[in-house]
Order: sequence, then C-alpha cells, then structure tokens
Amino acid sequence: MTKTTFTIQELTALVTEIFAGAGLSTLHAEALAQVITSAERDACKSHGIYRIEGCLRTIKAGKVVADAEPVMTVDNSAIVRVDALGGFSSAAFEMGVSALASRVSDLGIAALVLNNCTHFSALWHEIELLTDRGLVGMAMCPSYACVAPTGGSEALLGTNPFAFGWPRAGGDPYIFDFATSVAARGEIELYRQAGKPLPEGWAIDATGNPTTDPSAALAGAMLPFGAHKGSAISTMIELIAGIMIGDATSVESLAALGSMTLAPTHGELILAFDPARFAAGHGGDPLQRAEKLFEAILGQGARLPSQRRFTARANAVTNGITLSADEVEVLNRLHSGGLSAID
Amino acid sequence: MTKTTFTIQELTALVTEIFAGAGLSTLHAEALAQVITSAERDACKSHGIYRIEGCLRTIKAGKVVADAEPVMTVDNSAIVRVDALGGFSSAAFEMGVSALASRVSDLGIAALVLNNCTHFSALWHEIELLTDRGLVGMAMCPSYACVAPTGGSEALLGTNPFAFGWPRAGGDPYIFDFATSVAARGEIELYRQAGKPLPEGWAIDATGNPTTDPSAALAGAMLPFGAHKGSAISTMIELIAGIMIGDATSVESLAALGSMTLAPTHGELILAFDPARFAAGHGGDPLQRAEKLFEAILGQGARLPSQRRFTARANAVTNGITLSADEVEVLNRLHSGGLSAID
Repeated sequence: MTKTTFTIQELTALVTEIFAGAGLSTLHAEALAQVITSAERDACKSHGIYRIEGCLRTIKAGKVVADAEPVMTVDNSAIVRVDALGGFSSAAFEMGVSALASRVSDLGIAALVLNNCTHFSALWHEIELLTDRGLVGMAMCPSYACVAPTGGSEALLGTNPFAFGWPRAGGDPYIFDFATSVAARGEIELYRQAGKPLPEGWAIDATGNPTTDPSAALAGAMLPFGAHKGSAISTMIELIAGIMIGDATSVESLAALGSMTLAPTHGELILAFDPARFAAGHGGDPLQRAEKLFEAILGQGARLPSQRRFTARANAVTNGITLSADEVEVLNRLHSGGLSAID
Repeated sequence: MTKTTFTIQELTALVTEIFAGAGLSTLHAEALAQVITSAERDACKSHGIYRIEGCLRTIKAGKVVADAEPVMTVDNSAIVRVDALGGFSSAAFEMGVSALASRVSDLGIAALVLNNCTHFSALWHEIELLTDRGLVGMAMCPSYACVAPTGGSEALLGTNPFAFGWPRAGGDPYIFDFATSVAARGEIELYRQAGKPLPEGWAIDATGNPTTDPSAALAGAMLPFGAHKGSAISTMIELIAGIMIGDATSVESLAALGSMTLAPTHGELILAFDPARFAAGHGGDPLQRAEKLFEAILGQGARLPSQRRFTARANAVTNGITLSADEVEVLNRLHSGGLSAID
C-alpha cells in the first residue's frame, strides 16, 4: 500500500476542510484541525486524525453547537471564564488564553475556567500555549464515568486527565499529560481485539471484582493509576474541574450523552503561574535552576515526559507527516462525503 | 505496663512545655505542639509525639532558628509570601493563612508561599485551616532527595507530599495528604526491623537495580507511586514548590543538612480557591453537589481519605488520647531533660 506524506500545513488545511464541510464554523474548524494535526505531527495517534470521525459523529448527533461563539467574562478577580455555549472546547481555550496571561501578569497566578464545552482536545496542546508565553501551566478536566474509585465497585470517575507544563528557554517545554486511570479505554479495546488478557490491576468487571478479561473490563470499570493516591487525584479533578467550576461531573456528562462514542460535554480548569513573580528575587532564575533538575533526570537515564512527542515533531517539521493508505482513504472519504460519510 | 490518658488540652500543654524547655520561642513551641498533638489525636502516629525527638535534634544541631519571627509580604498580587527566616514552618503558615484567605476573598484564587522553613508538619493540618474557612486548598513541598525518578538509578526527588482539601458543611472536610513516593521511608525501616522483604516496586539499591531488601533500599532510593505518572507529579512539586518559589529542591535540602535525621529546610506552596466564586452561579451550590459525589463513593463501599483520622479524632475528643507507658516515659524524659535528653 502506498503511503502519502503531507506537510503540516497541507494536513492542517485538509482537516480544516473536513470540519468545515461537516458544518463547523471557521472558528471551530480551524481550532479543531490545529489540535488534531498537532497530535498527528507529534505521533500522538490517540488524539490524531483517528479522532476526526468521533468529532463528526458528535456533530451529526446534534450534540455540539457547530457555530457556537464562545463568550468570555473577565472581571477584577483572578478567574477568567469562557462559556463555550455548547461548542467544541479548543476555540474557547484559545479565546481565553490571552486574558489568562494578562491576569497572570497582573497577579502572578490566575485561573481559566471553561464551561459548557464539547471536549475534544489533548491538554498538552493547551499547556504549550501557556509555556510558549513563559508561563507555568496546569490543566485538568473530568470525562465520562468509566473508572471506579479504589475500593469501589462501579464506574464513577472519568479518566480525568491531569497536565502540567514548565517553559524551557530555547527548547521544548517540560510537559506531562496523563489520564488518572491506570490505562486509557482505547488500550483495553486493543487488548480485546488482540485477544490478550489485561495486566492485573487495570479493571473490575460489572460485579465489582478484579478482572483481566478485556470484554468484562469494558462492561465493568477501569481502575485509577497508583491505587488510592490516583483515586484521590481523580476525585479532586471531579471536585475542582467539574463541581467547583459549576460544570458537569463525569457521571453527569455520561448521563447527558448516554454514550461514550460521542465527545463528552463538561468544563475544564486551567491554572497559570508566572515563575519570575513567584521567585521574586529568591534563589536565582527559576528557569535556569530547573535546567539542572532536568539534566539530573536525563543524566541518570530517566526520560522526560513528552520527549518522544518532541522527537516526532522535529521529524515532522523536516520530513512531513506520513499517513498510511488506509488513513488517507478515510480522510478522502470524510472530505468528499462530509457527515453523510459517517454511520 | 500502665497506659496514661491525656485530654487534648493536657497533651498540647505538655508538648508545648517540652518545646519551650528546648529553647523554642512561645510562637514556635505553641505552633509545633498544635501540629504534633493534632496528629496524635488523629492516631496519625507518623506525625505525632514520636516526631518530637527529631525536632529537638534539629534544634540541638543548630539547624533551626528557635526564635525566628516570620516576615509576611502582601502586595497587590495574588501571592502572599511568608519568609520563615529559618524557623519552623508551622508558625509561618499560621501567620500567612489570614492574608491568603483575604486575597482569595478578593480574587477567587490566591497562593501562599513559605520560604526558608525548617519543615515539620503534616500538610493535612494546614489544609484543614483552609477548609475551616470554607476554602478549597492544595499544598505541596519538596523534602530530601531519597526517591529516584521512574527509569532512573539514584535519589533525586523527595517524598514530596501532595495534599488537597474540600470543605463539607456540617462535617469533616474531604482531605487527602500523601507522599508521592510509593511508601514512606519510615515504612521501609519497619520492614528492615521486622526482617521482612519489601513489596516489589518500592525501591532500588545503590547500583540502581530493583530490590526487595530493606537495607539495600535504604542505601539506594525509593520509587515514586504510580510509576511515571507519580514521578511526573513529584517532579512538578520540585519545580513549583521548590524552584518556582525560589526555595530549595530536595537535592539542595539534603546537601544543606547532610542528614535525613534532622528536619529538612525548604519552602512550601499552598493554593486556595473560593468555590462559590469559581461556580459563580453555574450548576448550583458546589458544596451540596460535592456531597452527592462523596455519597456515591461511600455508597459503593469505597472509603474517603482521612476517614480513619476523623474517627480517631472523634474518639479522642470524647475519651482523650491514650499513650503507652513507653511513650509517657519519653515525654517525661524530654520534659525534664530538654535538649540534654537528646543524643
């Protein structure tokens, strides 16, 4: 089968056209194409072009407002709020990021609250828009109820991603972004397709008992990473990135959609910090000091998170993004067929 | 052996006298006694009276300023800073908490930075001072380099505790507070004393290889909880609660003291949020909504973190705190002997 290589610009343009053809306004088509193409560029396939169909299914199901114009509220607090009004989250984040940075410049720390989003995004993509401005960032959001709390017997929490970024002068930022479940739901699906048992500790079945059977796990619930500690962090995310910001918990998000095959509806909490303002003349330049920590991690053979992504990115910038014939066929089908190409 | 039961007030007074007798100013003697007695009251023995000797050793070694008067800086930012000037951290926290709450009232979110502390405290104790005011709180700090990053071969990170609290109307708050290492150093010491092998995945030896030998682990390094995810969170804590606030990393803290038997010197980062301000009319009362989440966790048989502590506390309030004859003997020795009772 013939592979096809796209420049990043070419792939971004194609994905933008697919979304525009499916009825998204230019604002949303461009924002979503940016996220998906960035993920594909970084060989982060879980958020790459494979996700386009899910976004289109969500549009077709009428579960997202395709031309929503997000509304931003900035007041004298340290909280910037963007109401996505039922549109995809990426445009809402992009609308809020400048105001967030401005409040951080005034106050040293500020929060961005996104409400009423249909959420498709990799949090690292958002965090990079903060580190690009020299800010330290933290982001988290609920998802769907598919993870049981440690010691529990049924799905209550989401995969609830947690992401953090630290800017590095003249280099790629330090970024991590992970699900607080021990694995992603898609990974369990891959074990099922391969007919392989899951590792111990990943999941429980519908009766609440531990299982290594992928199908039983998909009918039951996943478990948090790191036992009770990961369960606590996931619960914190439900509390502060769901309930505290006046938006849906993972249980509420699933109840509203009734399906995990469409993009979930919920909010997101982003915190940003100005490291120079926090250091305030103590201890020297924080960015320089952090480099010593990173060198020490690498010097003993450990990796920094996102290293693989940045390596793939450097390759894509030089050599483009190569897709399989199957992948190109899907893109062409979606491009010519729009929503009618979706079941 | 005869056990002795103290009221909370009696034990607090006795511990305060021990610290005052060891040369701490009233400010610090009272603050430290409050933390230690609260831990003992909650049957949280790891931060209870057993820690008094370590504090006295730190005083005797001249590694803490026994009469430091913390200095607070409040400006028009969202960052309240308290420089402990080399004293114990608890009094610095108590000095800053009102100003932090005031900035949160103004801005919705604010940060408290503690610098130059000799750190002995349970973070949950500090978080409870925030939840008592109806605030949501998050706290973290480095410690000593005794944990290797995942994939690494030597100690670089600390046990770096992470704590979070959510206020509950008419009840004990939702609080968690855990080390980001898979276990506490003291737990490994208990395995060594019992001659038992460690569970897999807790530690590496001095050559960087996995070990279940407690002595080899103590000579090597502990591992983070939750593999690369916990390692990332621990690294984040070095970055934002060490470097960003212009204070020591866990490597620097250990280098400064040269010993893990004295209380470490470093800073601490506390974030506080006003849930009503964040919800701002969206989604209903966040505290009421959170109760549904807690009920769902308990309803499926899972526990809330800190439940055991609160049960022990309720018992201590009614029945007092009962100490063994050995424990009372130590307290009496420290009370009468002061620093000369310490090796």
